[in-house]
Amino acid sequence: MAAGKNRKGKIYVLNGPNLNLLGLRQPEIYGHTTLEQIREAVCQSAERQGWIAEFRQTNHEGELVGWLQESRERAAGVILNAAAYTHTSVAIHDALHLVGKPIIEIHLSNPHAREPFRHHSYVSSVAKGVIAGFGMNSYLLAVDAMAYILG
Amino acid sequence: MAAGKNRKGKIYVLNGPNLNLLGLRQPEIYGHTTLEQIREAVCQSAERQGWIAEFRQTNHEGELVGWLQESRERAAGVILNAAAYTHTSVAIHDALHLVGKPIIEIHLSNPHAREPFRHHSYVSSVAKGVIAGFGMNSYLLAVDAMAYILG
Amino acid sequence: MAAGKNRKGKIYVLNGPNLNLLGLRQPEIYGHTTLEQIREAVCQSAERQGWIAEFRQTNHEGELVGWLQESRERAAGVILNAAAYTHTSVAIHDALHLVGKPIIEIHLSNPHAREPFRHHSYVSSVAKGVIAGFGMNSYLLAVDAMAYILG
Amino acid sequence: MAAGKNRKGKIYVLNGPNLNLLGLRQPEIYGHTTLEQIREAVCQSAERQGWIAEFRQTNHEGELVGWLQESRERAAGVILNAAAYTHTSVAIHDALHLVGKPIIEIHLSNPHAREPFRHHSYVSSVAKGVIAGFGMNSYLLAVDAMAYILG
Amino acid sequence: MAAGKNRKGKIYVLNGPNLNLLGLRQPEIYGHTTLEQIREAVCQSAERQGWIAEFRQTNHEGELVGWLQESRERAAGVILNAAAYTHTSVAIHDALHLVGKPIIEIHLSNPHAREPFRHHSYVSSVAKGVIAGFGMNSYLLAVDAMAYILG
Amino acid sequence: MAAGKNRKGKIYVLNGPNLNLLGLRQPEIYGHTTLEQIREAVCQSAERQGWIAEFRQTNHEGELVGWLQESRERAAGVILNAAAYTHTSVAIHDALHLVGKPIIEIHLSNPHAREPFRHHSYVSSVAKGVIAGFGMNSYLLAVDAMAYILG
Amino acid sequence: MAAGKNRKGKIYVLNGPNLNLLGLRQPEIYGHTTLEQIREAVCQSAERQGWIAEFRQTNHEGELVGWLQESRERAAGVILNAAAYTHTSVAIHDALHLVGKPIIEIHLSNPHAREPFRHHSYVSSVAKGVIAGFGMNSYLLAVDAMAYILG
Amino acid sequence: MAAGKNRKGKIYVLNGPNLNLLGLRQPEIYGHTTLEQIREAVCQSAERQGWIAEFRQTNHEGELVGWLQESRERAAGVILNAAAYTHTSVAIHDALHLVGKPIIEIHLSNPHAREPFRHHSYVSSVAKGVIAGFGMNSYLLAVDAMAYILG
Amino acid sequence: MAAGKNRKGKIYVLNGPNLNLLGLRQPEIYGHTTLEQIREAVCQSAERQGWIAEFRQTNHEGELVGWLQESRERAAGVILNAAAYTHTSVAIHDALHLVGKPIIEIHLSNPHAREPFRHHSYVSSVAKGVIAGFGMNSYLLAVDAMAYILG
Amino acid sequence: MAAGKNRKGKIYVLNGPNLNLLGLRQPEIYGHTTLEQIREAVCQSAERQGWIAEFRQTNHEGELVGWLQESRERAAGVILNAAAYTHTSVAIHDALHLVGKPIIEIHLSNPHAREPFRHHSYVSSVAKGVIAGFGMNSYLLAVDAMAYILG
Amino acid sequence: MAAGKNRKGKIYVLNGPNLNLLGLRQPEIYGHTTLEQIREAVCQSAERQGWIAEFRQTNHEGELVGWLQESRERAAGVILNAAAYTHTSVAIHDALHLVGKPIIEIHLSNPHAREPFRHHSYVSSVAKGVIAGFGMNSYLLAVDAMAYILG
Amino acid sequence: MAAGKNRKGKIYVLNGPNLNLLGLRQPEIYGHTTLEQIREAVCQSAERQGWIAEFRQTNHEGELVGWLQESRERAAGVILNAAAYTHTSVAIHDALHLVGKPIIEIHLSNPHAREPFRHHSYVSSVAKGVIAGFGMNSYLLAVDAMAYILG
Repeated sequence: MAAGKNRKGKIYVLNGPNLNLLGLRQPEIYGHTTLEQIREAVCQSAERQGWIAEFRQTNHEGELVGWLQESRERAAGVILNAAAYTHTSVAIHDALHLVGKPIIEIHLSNPHAREPFRHHSYVSSVAKGVIAGFGMNSYLLAVDAMAYILG
Repeated sequence: MAAGKNRKGKIYVLNGPNLNLLGLRQPEIYGHTTLEQIREAVCQSAERQGWIAEFRQTNHEGELVGWLQESRERAAGVILNAAAYTHTSVAIHDALHLVGKPIIEIHLSNPHAREPFRHHSYVSSVAKGVIAGFGMNSYLLAVDAMAYILG
Repeated sequence: MAAGKNRKGKIYVLNGPNLNLLGLRQPEIYGHTTLEQIREAVCQSAERQGWIAEFRQTNHEGELVGWLQESRERAAGVILNAAAYTHTSVAIHDALHLVGKPIIEIHLSNPHAREPFRHHSYVSSVAKGVIAGFGMNSYLLAVDAMAYILG
Repeated sequence: MAAGKNRKGKIYVLNGPNLNLLGLRQPEIYGHTTLEQIREAVCQSAERQGWIAEFRQTNHEGELVGWLQESRERAAGVILNAAAYTHTSVAIHDALHLVGKPIIEIHLSNPHAREPFRHHSYVSSVAKGVIAGFGMNSYLLAVDAMAYILG
Repeated sequence: MAAGKNRKGKIYVLNGPNLNLLGLRQPEIYGHTTLEQIREAVCQSAERQGWIAEFRQTNHEGELVGWLQESRERAAGVILNAAAYTHTSVAIHDALHLVGKPIIEIHLSNPHAREPFRHHSYVSSVAKGVIAGFGMNSYLLAVDAMAYILG
Repeated sequence: MAAGKNRKGKIYVLNGPNLNLLGLRQPEIYGHTTLEQIREAVCQSAERQGWIAEFRQTNHEGELVGWLQESRERAAGVILNAAAYTHTSVAIHDALHLVGKPIIEIHLSNPHAREPFRHHSYVSSVAKGVIAGFGMNSYLLAVDAMAYILG
Repeated sequence: MAAGKNRKGKIYVLNGPNLNLLGLRQPEIYGHTTLEQIREAVCQSAERQGWIAEFRQTNHEGELVGWLQESRERAAGVILNAAAYTHTSVAIHDALHLVGKPIIEIHLSNPHAREPFRHHSYVSSVAKGVIAGFGMNSYLLAVDAMAYILG
Repeated sequence: MAAGKNRKGKIYVLNGPNLNLLGLRQPEIYGHTTLEQIREAVCQSAERQGWIAEFRQTNHEGELVGWLQESRERAAGVILNAAAYTHTSVAIHDALHLVGKPIIEIHLSNPHAREPFRHHSYVSSVAKGVIAGFGMNSYLLAVDAMAYILG
Repeated sequence: MAAGKNRKGKIYVLNGPNLNLLGLRQPEIYGHTTLEQIREAVCQSAERQGWIAEFRQTNHEGELVGWLQESRERAAGVILNAAAYTHTSVAIHDALHLVGKPIIEIHLSNPHAREPFRHHSYVSSVAKGVIAGFGMNSYLLAVDAMAYILG
Repeated sequence: MAAGKNRKGKIYVLNGPNLNLLGLRQPEIYGHTTLEQIREAVCQSAERQGWIAEFRQTNHEGELVGWLQESRERAAGVILNAAAYTHTSVAIHDALHLVGKPIIEIHLSNPHAREPFRHHSYVSSVAKGVIAGFGMNSYLLAVDAMAYILG
Repeated sequence: MAAGKNRKGKIYVLNGPNLNLLGLRQPEIYGHTTLEQIREAVCQSAERQGWIAEFRQTNHEGELVGWLQESRERAAGVILNAAAYTHTSVAIHDALHLVGKPIIEIHLSNPHAREPFRHHSYVSSVAKGVIAGFGMNSYLLAVDAMAYILG
Repeated sequence: MAAGKNRKGKIYVLNGPNLNLLGLRQPEIYGHTTLEQIREAVCQSAERQGWIAEFRQTNHEGELVGWLQESRERAAGVILNAAAYTHTSVAIHDALHLVGKPIIEIHLSNPHAREPFRHHSYVSSVAKGVIAGFGMNSYLLAVDAMAYILG
């Protein structure tokens, strides 16, 4: 099958604050994989299933809001690891209502096994589904799940 | 009366996250009017009453803080629709304390008729008054109210 | 335009407990305007916009409930300053559900800038919109807002 | 059996705020039966079982308190639909302690299936029993229950 | 009328933990009637109104869940005294959603007049109505109520 | 000293709901003294100290609000037993702010030794002082205290 | 009447932490009267009514506990201003249960008009009555009240 | 690859209360797939990846506890949809601590988008990861995730 | 002394969920002793003091309820380690009210030194006493305590 | 065995406020045994098991802190009935961390069967174990438990 | 400069319960420095800056209250490490209001990084400033800060 | 010692939202010193102790996160005045975990003496120590403290 020919469209894979330091950060919680390694694995997996993964990271809540707004017209679905903003951002919650495409919430670790302030998510109530606790595989399972959903 | 001659000064009309997509977003809650249409109506109404409306929108909490700081020296009053940041931003709360000019808090819909996390406002305790629930008219009523206050 | 000719109908403007003493009561919070002065300004403003304002005050929760029931058949809209009952009356909340006409909640001062027990309103969730903090102008802005709504 | 001859006494059936508009009010919750229709059914049912139903409605908390005090000397038992005052009135709670006769709390709909502020009742802890959710039949079942109790 | 001829169907009357010891247990709260006596009275009353009462008791949450699932196909309605499980069982709450038939929640005593942990019910929000506080008569009134509902 | 000659003015002694039944009501909590007996003792004690006691009772929150407003011009001080409204009435709280004369809150029994919903008072924060738990003597001590305060 | 002849016994008047500095401490809240002045006034008033006031102050919770235990055998009644320990001491609460004599809780100012952590009292639920907010007169009213109680 | 040859072992897939009625129950939340269809898909997917799926359902908390204890010796990993017991069972929480094998928590729908009492999970803090909201695919993704984990 | 001759009766020693795996489960919390070893030590200790210990374990809440009901007629006292059900079971709480014999609550570890959800016990308020934190010795101390109580 | 010869060391048995009045205090809760009687029984029991019991009581939190610090060097273990300070003293909690010897928390009655403010213990989280509800036997069982622990 | 000549006055450095065991207590939290070593360092540092440090420690809340009262007349400022009483003592809070001199709250470790019951301080709201987490250096920094403040 | 020669490295001194307006903002709380004045004093003090202070301010949460990430490689320690973000930013909390260098939290005023929403800090639990309430001196004391720590 010729590359790019029957691409069905883009899946946005958006990452929130501090994920750029992945692999350097609290390895006892998050492991040694870097975000770049995850980006590559995600893009390959998406490609194998006929999708293009648009993979981004930002520390800015406002930029994440902007990307979610953008996904409204350019993406077939959104995979979101909002990291710390998961627990504090009503702005992201509101932006997710605008997307109008399937949303999958992911986390590297299981927030419910950590501090109480990580037990509430402003993303969950707007997401189709949640995958948490599998490290890099949270991303890959989400790509598979998105492919199932988008059919 | 010659236009611009007895302009009394500027009213800042500042808008928070996701309001740029107004009219596209949850029309059952917010209606079909776009932010551009509101901007025009606000500017005309302000002008009729001898004021210049400085109308802006941003998705960034930090930028909103900066504009509020700026309003301290350049505006006669501030009309603020902080949207999602209404409920989460102590930074905006602190910036509002700096303004030293009348502040009117506005909302398109009535936050108290929505989810519990929209029932608390970090803006209200620093605002002169609140107008909520009238869609675009929340803005126009706020312009009238500001004109009353500024005399 | 001949007076009374194209009157479109009545707007009920209902006031709750202690508002009869307005102007005498805590002027640092509510100012020096009396309820009678507000009544006159409201009636004139309504008249200018083609409406008759039915302006009343009571200290009795049950009487307020009765007036709201009455408004169901006689008013085109209701402007309500329920004062202290705003925060405690489920009976008024239930009566408001019966009105079936646009309701605007108003307050002279901003309840959210006062004691915590004034932060919850049994009126807000049933009201079209809220206007608070502008003293007498809260009433006049509400008349304008009602005129917009009733077209 | 000659009517009135072996009447055993009176059962007070007291109704709180907004119930006078029954049948007109939120029919999706309360149905289309009017309070007058309920009154008739209740009186007939009571009569069939040898009792006289004293059926009243008021929007005033204080009047309800007065009727409960009155029932102390004139009634064999009290059936009370305190409506909104169920959830807010300590005064009614205190009056119920004075009655000294069996009290049955009733509701047309099931308060526990509605908003959280309807989940607490100041009546329940003083009532013999509770019947809720059966519309007009809540009243008729309460008459039967009262007849059982009064033997 | 020939017995069994115009039987309309079955009403499940299900009882939760510890009710098998009724009459032996805290008589100051529950009285001296045994569950067997209630069963007989319920069956006779149901029969008089053209229904067959299927009367059961279990101490096992899982078995109660099973019976509720079973009632889905075999019962016209369910009368449930879930006893202690009323306050703790989400499993029963979920099973009740499956029943698809009218459900009446009953209690011998009035839970709201007892300890705070008995004030919340996982049954109420799924039940058509509630009858509590009348001892054995709670059951008989529920049979009457069910007969009204099933017509 | 000739009676009436050097009367200094009036002390309002206002009583809330259900106090009219005093002596008949829960004697284990409130004792057997009637409100009429208290009225007489209060009036005599006030008179001995050169004051006229204006002693009233009502079951209506709104009427209590009215009396408090009236006391603003006619009383030198107010002794208030708001009974149940102590715990629920923001309207009375607001009216007390208007009085502008010394206010003493009284209770027959000690609310803090009773149910939790009697532990909060909307009167306390506006009162000069509180006297509770001495039955009829709560009234007499309050008259003495008021006489001290009014000098 | 010969002094000491018909003394009926002792009234303990016990004072908690920081009251030794009275008159020096936050005069805007507590006034300028010193504890010594209060002691004298209390002793005179008690004497006039045929009692001996045993007046003490301590900063030590344990010492206050000891004095309350001692009062069990030596006092006819206890007037207690536990000051800060009112809000934190379960030990004093327990000691008060041992006293077996009438207890009156007093405060110079009204704790309910101050910070929230002063709204709960471990003394109230064990006291006959409470008198608060009258400065030195709280003590004198308590002596009168105790005299009434002890007859 | 010959079937059964390099089977690595068993994966327990355990289902809690009411899941036996899947497809019949609230299809707007859970869809029309039956538990039998899920079982087949799960077994096939496991088999393709070299594992045997042991698939069971029970309405009994105690039985679920027993199966989890059993999995300790017989399973390489556990996939658990504890349904309602997720939110109430400390017993299952304790049993999960005993398993000593990777545990994946799954849900058909997203509990965080439902009632508040479904927002807390006694499973999450003991699970390696969570997958929720993908209907039958929650199971299949969990099989994939388990295969990744078990290598 | 001839065995069985002066046996005074039976002491039920009942164990809740997961205790069957004792010794295998989180040894850092519970140690290495198995339930069988405890059973033997308990039986011997009871026998030495003239009692027969009836020692059982179950994972089923309903079965535990049944055993407690049974103990009502067959046991002189009950020693209960309800394990996880301690914190969640109102059904066991209700059953304990039926027992009518001394009940001792025991725990291997100290629940108050563990997670917050283990700090509340539905057993404590119905138990004569509590012994926790001594591992197997919690059982043996309870046997001694029961022997003291039963005399 | 010669007395004192193979004494293994001291066990501190420390008692908090109001326990000196034991036997005089609320006998319906604590019984008629005095602290002196307990001291004797405890010393004898300790002696029989080869230990010397150091038995003390104080009403002073600070003195209890000092004794706990002292026990650090002089005791083999500590049995503590902190009474009221159990629920309020962080100072005792901190001192217990210093002891470095086994600590057993005891209570005469079962705190969890009493007022809610007795449900939290600052001792439990630092204690090896807890024994409560057995009156004097709580002490004797604790001596046995300590002997087991100290071997 | 002759010693003692231009001494500006005294700085009270007061220490609460258990600090006398510093260096022996939980070294992983507090380190190995003893209170005597801190005293010496503090005194030298104060002296270098022209002040005399009055350094004391007590386990008694009441004694700490007394020292704070004393500081009112004898100290230029107070450095307070109230240890456990920080979190529980309203008496110390009240005494601090009396001091009328600058107060600095210090802690060896950072209370906000420890158990939740150490997150509230009754000292903070009355203190000029807070220094926590620097071990012995918390004291030395406080001396410097006090020197700055006292100029 | 030649300047710059034995510089040990950099100390990041990072400032959050609204601090750029220091000196202009609520002088009754923060005083009249500007941030530029603080920058100079901090740089001089650091230099005197052999360090270079990197002093920055931003209104953007995301930028603060970025600077904290940057400090990981370039700073020997971080002094952070996160201002409003102290109370709301989990993103900063997470970034602080990455720094791996000593962190000192500072505040100009004492947050615990202000509104309740300033009582919780997401910085404290990750910081070595806290210094608050000394205005500009909070910065200078922190430089000293950092110098102590970095040795």
